[in-house]
Amino acid sequence: MPAEIGILAAVEPMRVLLFDVFGTLVDWRSSLIELAEATTVGAGVQADWAAIVDDWRRAYQPAMDLVRQGATWRDLDSLQRETLSGVLTRRGIWLPAADAESLVRGWRQLRPWPDSRDGLDRLRRKYVTATLSNGHLALLADLLKFADLRVDAVLSAQLAAGYKPDAKVYLTALRLLDCPPENAGMVAAHASDLHAAAAVGIRPIFVRRRLEWGPGTPPADPPALDGLIETDGLDHLAEALGC
Amino acid sequence: MPAEIGILAAVEPMRVLLFDVFGTLVDWRSSLIELAEATTVGAGVQADWAAIVDDWRRAYQPAMDLVRQGATWRDLDSLQRETLSGVLTRRGIWLPAADAESLVRGWRQLRPWPDSRDGLDRLRRKYVTATLSNGHLALLADLLKFADLRVDAVLSAQLAAGYKPDAKVYLTALRLLDCPPENAGMVAAHASDLHAAAAVGIRPIFVRRRLEWGPGTPPADPPALDGLIETDGLDHLAEALGC
Repeated sequence: MPAEIGILAAVEPMRVLLFDVFGTLVDWRSSLIELAEATTVGAGVQADWAAIVDDWRRAYQPAMDLVRQGATWRDLDSLQRETLSGVLTRRGIWLPAADAESLVRGWRQLRPWPDSRDGLDRLRRKYVTATLSNGHLALLADLLKFADLRVDAVLSAQLAAGYKPDAKVYLTALRLLDCPPENAGMVAAHASDLHAAAAVGIRPIFVRRRLEWGPGTPPADPPALDGLIETDGLDHLAEALGC
Repeated sequence: MPAEIGILAAVEPMRVLLFDVFGTLVDWRSSLIELAEATTVGAGVQADWAAIVDDWRRAYQPAMDLVRQGATWRDLDSLQRETLSGVLTRRGIWLPAADAESLVRGWRQLRPWPDSRDGLDRLRRKYVTATLSNGHLALLADLLKFADLRVDAVLSAQLAAGYKPDAKVYLTALRLLDCPPENAGMVAAHASDLHAAAAVGIRPIFVRRRLEWGPGTPPADPPALDGLIETDGLDHLAEALGC
């Protein structure tokens, strides 16, 4: 158990754990590549789906930036539909509309990492657990059902009409769970999420997801944040927190 | 299986089921009476807790009316704290503050009806299930964990900054689940909830809870609504809907 966990638990007990979803609880990349290959085989489309899925995921932040900068909030289906179209056009690939829509809906059929289900179940015994994702509620409800992941509350950036890492997203979740930031932890595989959570006083908990960007790409580095808890998975986190 | 179910399912398939919580999924009355007796035995308070709990529950609607009429939204803990104080004062009972607070928190420790857990699990296989309660999210997250009830999304009137039966509560839930009213059902033991849901186009599903107000009091009558589905429990409903 990293020394930090014991020290932090002694300072201020956590009551709520918030979980990022895409990349942290579920493996978007391999799931979407597999889905794209299966979906497009009928239309006879040949393409480097791994590269396309990576491009698509990279187009996600700039699309959300428009909302963060004040554009009317739109849900992730709407943003992903647009970014997928752009990615395919740039690569000169044409997909039947129904196939493109299947890929957009594919974000509701992402496999959990092997430790996610059991880890969440163990953490639920001691903490109130909630998602805090940029996916909207309708997407999250379908995805959590598909992946058989159980949390105590399904929260989304949608409830703040924003997108992470906007501070209002974290603050809205804390308000809804009636939890001061010092009694909450944010569990994520991404530094930007944890920086933003820590900035409003939530304890940052980094989960290293070695395969998020595939076997050839090193995982994200943990952010340099005071009091960071670092783990290699939710089973590891559950154990470290005595669940 | 009532004839209506087959007819309705043929007209417009349901995708989402919304569930009232207090009275419909959990037995607030016997749980709170038991909790009150156990909580107050230490302070040596003698009282007719069944009558007090019934009075407290009846004070719930007038308290919410103030919010419905435009007062600033407050959560159920805040309303119930105030109504409990009024009920106790009218009966000349004084409780230590910590005991009164235990009763307010008691709404997070209500036993499910015997069919609720299994019925919800069965209904989840075919439908997206969500609570739609006047309890706030923090309360619902604790209560569903206590009662071990699993739904796909935990929704509350809080997300509309209102209280049922305000139409905006139902419309906000439908918007969040991206579901047109004709593809949703509202499951409740109370006519007012079902009237309001039906008024915005949601299919009304009545669950008869014979013991909601105790063994001596007859249960609420089903509302006279077109296309009403009537059931005696969630297991019955699951069976009728082929889950």
